Amino acid sequence: MNRTNQLINLLKVKYPLVQAPMLGVTTPEMVAAVSNEGGLGSLPVGLQSPEKTLDLIRKTKALTDKPFAVNLFAHDMPAIDVAAISAIQDKLVVITNRYGLEHPLVDIEKLQHYSYREQVEILISEHVPVVSFTFGVIDAESIQRLHDAGIVLIGTATSVREAKQLESMGIDLITAQGIEAGGHRGTFFFDEPLPQIGAMSLIPQVVDEVSVPVLAAGGIMDGRTIKAAMILGAAGVQVGSAFLRSNESLSIDNYKQVVHESVDTDTVLTRAFSGRWARGIRNTFHNEVEKLNLDFPAYPLLNDLTVPIRTASQKLNNKEFTTLWAGQSAHLAKLKTSAEIVRELIAEAGWSE
Amino acid sequence: MNRTNQLINLLKVKYPLVQAPMLGVTTPEMVAAVSNEGGLGSLPVGLQSPEKTLDLIRKTKALTDKPFAVNLFAHDMPAIDVAAISAIQDKLVVITNRYGLEHPLVDIEKLQHYSYREQVEILISEHVPVVSFTFGVIDAESIQRLHDAGIVLIGTATSVREAKQLESMGIDLITAQGIEAGGHRGTFFFDEPLPQIGAMSLIPQVVDEVSVPVLAAGGIMDGRTIKAAMILGAAGVQVGSAFLRSNESLSIDNYKQVVHESVDTDTVLTRAFSGRWARGIRNTFHNEVEKLNLDFPAYPLLNDLTVPIRTASQKLNNKEFTTLWAGQSAHLAKLKTSAEIVRELIAEAGWSE
Repeated sequence: MNRTNQLINLLKVKYPLVQAPMLGVTTPEMVAAVSNEGGLGSLPVGLQSPEKTLDLIRKTKALTDKPFAVNLFAHDMPAIDVAAISAIQDKLVVITNRYGLEHPLVDIEKLQHYSYREQVEILISEHVPVVSFTFGVIDAESIQRLHDAGIVLIGTATSVREAKQLESMGIDLITAQGIEAGGHRGTFFFDEPLPQIGAMSLIPQVVDEVSVPVLAAGGIMDGRTIKAAMILGAAGVQVGSAFLRSNESLSIDNYKQVVHESVDTDTVLTRAFSGRWARGIRNTFHNEVEKLNLDFPAYPLLNDLTVPIRTASQKLNNKEFTTLWAGQSAHLAKLKTSAEIVRELIAEAGWSE
Repeated sequence: MNRTNQLINLLKVKYPLVQAPMLGVTTPEMVAAVSNEGGLGSLPVGLQSPEKTLDLIRKTKALTDKPFAVNLFAHDMPAIDVAAISAIQDKLVVITNRYGLEHPLVDIEKLQHYSYREQVEILISEHVPVVSFTFGVIDAESIQRLHDAGIVLIGTATSVREAKQLESMGIDLITAQGIEAGGHRGTFFFDEPLPQIGAMSLIPQVVDEVSVPVLAAGGIMDGRTIKAAMILGAAGVQVGSAFLRSNESLSIDNYKQVVHESVDTDTVLTRAFSGRWARGIRNTFHNEVEKLNLDFPAYPLLNDLTVPIRTASQKLNNKEFTTLWAGQSAHLAKLKTSAEIVRELIAEAGWSE
């Protein structure tokens, strides 16, 4: 329990349980509910403007006085090849037209991207206690500034090598993301095939190779999976899919329904929505984009193009043209409040005794 | 411990630990060592002639009076398109010539295949106590005959659906093979993408859906992984990679060395050696065959073609043209006797107390 105590002290939480930041699913209400129950909620602000970032943080703070994490996307800013991106948008229009889906076009000339660097000052001035990030490592200057402000940093790794890199940069905690996990892969070394390491292999090997506490992610849904992760050496766990069907989730009803009906083999890794690999339940959009054999542009350019399609799909409660991010055990997610989910996990893990 | 006791009683072993059948790696000596220490050794006889099968069983029996399993390949017999197979062999010759490797050609007209059906009578007459199988489900008649002879049957599943199929056929125990596992995938439903479920997701979901005891496979290397698997609901574990570097392993020295030096991301799934998906450490042959974009023939036809290449490579202690099957945690395998490995696993699992 040494590493767990270390993690609890660092995060100033009651239980070593982190709710995964799920952009498009997680709300300030979800974050606050998890933190209020003694876990650590995580507020995703990747891709958001400084104004929106501030607004989301303040909304969360209004709902909890407990610590929560703010999650950044640490990718580089993409160069925009307008012709190439327009050509991709044209191909997407063919798909949405065929299915009669409304598709407000993106003005590629006016695309605007925000870097996490623009968010760092806000995090500091808002006294956010914990900052987590994925898709890379934030730069040394940002690490320094956040650390100087007393902020605890959590990075995401999908391989031992990535975990070692995070530790060498001075990151305080590492989330080891097993292949079971839903949503985007946190992979940031692209000079080798996408790491696809199962949690049973990843967690113990990461724990062996780094000295900072490790959070296990991927397939953590209930007491048995929490206990298994801890026995593998994790100091704590990060839970995502378990909150997909919660009251505080942004998922449309048909998303919640298909998660409930899914089986272990229904999720696949796809680049169809954002250009980055992510795990979700296969649907029509996914299949159609795969047929295009796209030369995927740098993140988040494809994401920019698919946002209006996903929004239109969600408005119709149509699950076929929106992201259905889900882990390999998402089937086990329950229709409850986030607070109930946290309390149940804590009880099943044996932490409430 | 209910399911574990059920498993121990069924297998008549002291500990719920099965050594994975690894064709080309496992020897009668390995099997006997594991069984003599109270686990269940597994003798792979897939693809072998009835004579060779009998010989291997008798060799094992001469080394142990404890129960062991004999492992069958349950695939169908392939139809042989001589022209198509010859064309593939021609392509392989280009590769081996380029690297100056000896390559005795296979006479495709004379290819001979043995069905597990030819082995069933031997298993019965030799009073083999346990028969495991992979690559499918043995037919209902074979199940009946083996069961009538009092033989316990173990099938392999890579998804919940496969596990349910095995249970519905009357199989006594199911090995749930997580994506972490080395060697061939046991997948036998081919109407959907290859299941790639991590053990953290597969084990609990299989346990929830079948009532027979489940053996966890994939990433099981030491006490922590055994304990994690048991907490996830497994009745016992199957261990493969942990024996790769054992004294009783057939692996050449350079195979043992590269396993030792490997990291989590070094293994990949490939069809290069047999036409069936299997996990191993990437090498030259693997890369070269991938470039050919083969239309893979039915199992074991590509296997037939690569056996002479692998044999030639092994004779030279050359790891580049032979199979380097290994799981995602194979790096943790130790250079010890199989008996020492079993004793260590049992002690670490807390079973020896």
